[in-house]
Order: sequence, then structure tokens, then C-alpha cells
Amino acid sequence: MKNSRSSIALLLFFMFLSMSFAYPAKKKQYKPCKQLVLFFHDVVYNGHNAANATSSMVAARDGVNLTNLGDQFHFGSMVIFDDPITLDNNFHSTPVGRAQGMYFYDTKNTYTAWLGFSFVFNSTDHQGSINFIGADPLMNKTRDISVVGGTGDFFMHRGIATLMTDSFEGEVYFRLRVDIKFYECW
Amino acid sequence: MKNSRSSIALLLFFMFLSMSFAYPAKKKQYKPCKQLVLFFHDVVYNGHNAANATSSMVAARDGVNLTNLGDQFHFGSMVIFDDPITLDNNFHSTPVGRAQGMYFYDTKNTYTAWLGFSFVFNSTDHQGSINFIGADPLMNKTRDISVVGGTGDFFMHRGIATLMTDSFEGEVYFRLRVDIKFYECW
Amino acid sequence: MKNSRSSIALLLFFMFLSMSFAYPAKKKQYKPCKQLVLFFHDVVYNGHNAANATSSMVAARDGVNLTNLGDQFHFGSMVIFDDPITLDNNFHSTPVGRAQGMYFYDTKNTYTAWLGFSFVFNSTDHQGSINFIGADPLMNKTRDISVVGGTGDFFMHRGIATLMTDSFEGEVYFRLRVDIKFYECW
Repeated sequence: MKNSRSSIALLLFFMFLSMSFAYPAKKKQYKPCKQLVLFFHDVVYNGHNAANATSSMVAARDGVNLTNLGDQFHFGSMVIFDDPITLDNNFHSTPVGRAQGMYFYDTKNTYTAWLGFSFVFNSTDHQGSINFIGADPLMNKTRDISVVGGTGDFFMHRGIATLMTDSFEGEVYFRLRVDIKFYECW
Repeated sequence: MKNSRSSIALLLFFMFLSMSFAYPAKKKQYKPCKQLVLFFHDVVYNGHNAANATSSMVAARDGVNLTNLGDQFHFGSMVIFDDPITLDNNFHSTPVGRAQGMYFYDTKNTYTAWLGFSFVFNSTDHQGSINFIGADPLMNKTRDISVVGGTGDFFMHRGIATLMTDSFEGEVYFRLRVDIKFYECW
Repeated sequence: MKNSRSSIALLLFFMFLSMSFAYPAKKKQYKPCKQLVLFFHDVVYNGHNAANATSSMVAARDGVNLTNLGDQFHFGSMVIFDDPITLDNNFHSTPVGRAQGMYFYDTKNTYTAWLGFSFVFNSTDHQGSINFIGADPLMNKTRDISVVGGTGDFFMHRGIATLMTDSFEGEVYFRLRVDIKFYECW
């Protein structure tokens, strides 16, 4: 009798344990499994800075020329970039990778961009790439975009990247701080 | 003897239970964990509707001008948009968010587009964004694209969005119905 | 006494089993759950091959014309494509689907592209689509990009696609071999 009671207790104990397994850890865990803080530096070509420019306008609305981001909050202007990534906010620090991709301005009455790009690493610290897409309402202090995948050290990773405009000079130099929080790490 | 037999039965019972845990719920569950039905409204700039247009061509094949989607099923024409999202199919309903991003026509012998965009919400109903990419064979009644990530209320979400052309007028106004089914909700 | 000892042993056994469930299989399993090897064929429009071309430049830096990929390693040149997918490396094999999307060159001092595209299938073998984004450093023998989602037979799939330049002729014909390894299959 005592024995069957303890068996039932054991059964209930495992049933309780079982229920917690039915909801995999990832659904409940909002603590990042990996985190990176990086900066990248965008120098937009303006017709006079070919040697230093890291990005260039390649498309725009009818009548907007490609050496000038255009009126209407740059609505429709698309920029392709290959920007150095650094560990701190110094443009002259040794790059640890490249931010490569595009952004385009997509609102007529404020500054909003849409981003599709990758961080590409090939150093002793990191090998591989991180892929991002998302909306970037530039006037907000922080903006969240999606980390939709990764390769190499970042194999299959997913997460959220928080962008902050760390500095800008006119419409030529933009420095972005990126806090990457991975929630799926593999 | 009886006791060891019941132990074995218990063991088998838990082994059976265990197997079902080895395959996390998400692999088997095709019921959405969250669902949204929304409409968005695209008014393409055609040279005469600057005030009302919500989108604009910004790139095209050689020789195609940017106020006209072009021949060959618009092959190569790229449009950047900032379209109002509404809860019903009425263009004049109060927007609940913005659909921001791009599409481009990418087939020479039929109407097919490729989409990269976000739904951006900033209301009492929803805060945050949903990020989409995928192929859109426009002549099909329904087309599925991927929800590859989200932020805010849609933190880390993934799913499928089913697009339907709800209405169109010439090559200026397009209304899309979007059924978003999230299968990873966090 | 013996009985309570065996109960404890059983308890420990299940606790051990339980721990392994706490980390869902996907976090530990790096063996693909599905695999595909496919080829796609890109014939870039150069002003003289309108009938055969499967892709076209649609955007570029200031002063670069759209029938020529441009200098500076084609930096800024964007191409929209609708390329046949085949099971082998023969351009004339019956296509099993279409690779639809865009790539753009994004580096000034080497050949690097960024890709956003879909594989679209509508055959007895495969129905549905696979969505890709990622950086493509063309001079590397193999390059990994992300499979960020899928629809139909590839519902919610994620994985890695390894690209290899299988052949190229001047700046007109490119053949890519794509090894797709899915690690989330649903």
C-alpha cells in the first residue's frame, strides 16, 4: 500500500516535470544567450569624397540626382554601403568586420529608413556573418530590427539588434551603435 | 515480483512520455499561436499624384522612366512605399500602422514581385514591428511570404503571411489583404 | 529498503532523462533535417541579349549606365533576376523552379554582393518557396547565406545555403551551385 502510494507520488512528480518540458526553454527565456555591442560608420558619397566614401546612392525618385539625398526626407533614396565595423566609437579604430548592404528612406514626412544588410567578420575574434532586416525610424533614440540568421560563429542565430545614432555630420557621416542580443544561439 | 513489474510499467510509461518531449511542440503544432488580418493601401506615384502617392518608383531597367511602371510586366521596376495599414478594406479608415519597404517586379512574362518590408505599429493596440520577405506571384489568388522576425509586441515572432489582392485601380491603387499567422510567438 | 533504493534509482534515472529534454533537440543537432542541391543560371542583360537575358541592372552609382556592370568592382550596381533553377549544371536542363530576387555589388576593392531572393517551386517534386538573404563574397570558393523562411513544402524552414560559382562567362553568364541545408524543418 505504502509502495503504490509512493509510486503515485513519483508519477505525479514526473507528470509535473513533463509539463514543463512541453514548452521548450526558448519560449520562456528572454535573457540573451549571446550579446555584442558594435559601431559602424557610414560615409555617403556626395560627389566630392570618392576616396573616403563607404557608401553611395544608387536609386532615387524621378528627378533626384544621385549625389544628393534629395528633398521630402530623402523619400525613395537608396544607398548601398560597405562600412567598417569597430569595437568603439572611433572611426579610426581597426575595423573588426564590415557592415554590407543597403538602406533606403521610405517616408515623406519624417526620416525613416528600411535596412537589409549583413555584418561580415573574418578575424580571430569572429568568423562568419549576421543577417539583419527591419524598419529604422531614425528620429527615435533607439530602434529595434530583426537578426534573421547567421553563419559561421553565428550559425542559425536569431535575435534583436537595437540601433542608436551615435553621431552624424550633415548628410555625409553617420555612426550607428548596434546592440545585438541573440535569443537563439544553437 | 509484482513490485518490479510495476516499476517496469512505470519505466515504459515515462519512456513513452519522454519520446514525445524529444520533439518540441513547435515541430508538430501547425496551429497559429497568434493571428492578424490587416489591409494596406499602395498609391503609386505616376507624375500627377504627388500629394496622394504613398509610394514611388526609384529604379528600373535601362530606358524605362520612373513615372511609369514600364513594359515587359514591369520587369526590373522597383517601388519604395510607406502605405497606411487599416483594419478593414476602406482606404479612409484610421490607419493602425504603416507598411514600409520595397517591392520590385522580377519576371518578364507575367506579374511577379519580390517584397521586403515591415509593418510598423505605434498605437494602443500594437507596439513594435513585423518583418517580411518573399516572392509574390501577383496573378495567384493567394500568395504566401515569410514573417522572418518581429520586435516589441512581436518580439522574435515567425510565421507566414498570406497576401490577397483585394482591389486595384489601373496601375495606381493597389489594396492588399494580409493574413498573418504566427507559429512562433515567444 | 531495497524497494525505496530502487525508487531512488528510478528517480535519478528520470531526472537525468529530464535534463536532456530541457534543451530541445534543435539546439544540439547540427545534422540537416532536409537537404537540396540545385543550380541556377543568371544571364545579365548587356544591351544586346534582350531575348536570352534572365536579369537586368536597374540601379547603379552616379554616371554608371545600366547596360554595363560598371567599374570599381561594380560597387553600387543592382541586378533584378528571374533565373531558371535546374537539378544539374546544364543551362538547357528542364527548370524545376525559378530563382527570383535581387543582388547588388557592395564593395569598392573586391567582388562582393548582397543577395535577397526566393526559390519558387511549382512542380510535382516541390511546391512552395524558400527565402534567402545574406552576404556573398564572390571570390571565396564557398559562401554561406541564411535561409530565413519558407512556404508550402518548406513551411517555416530555416537553414544555411552554401553558394559556389560553378561557372561564369565574362560578365554575362553566371552559374551558381546552391547546397541548401535545413536545420529547422517543421
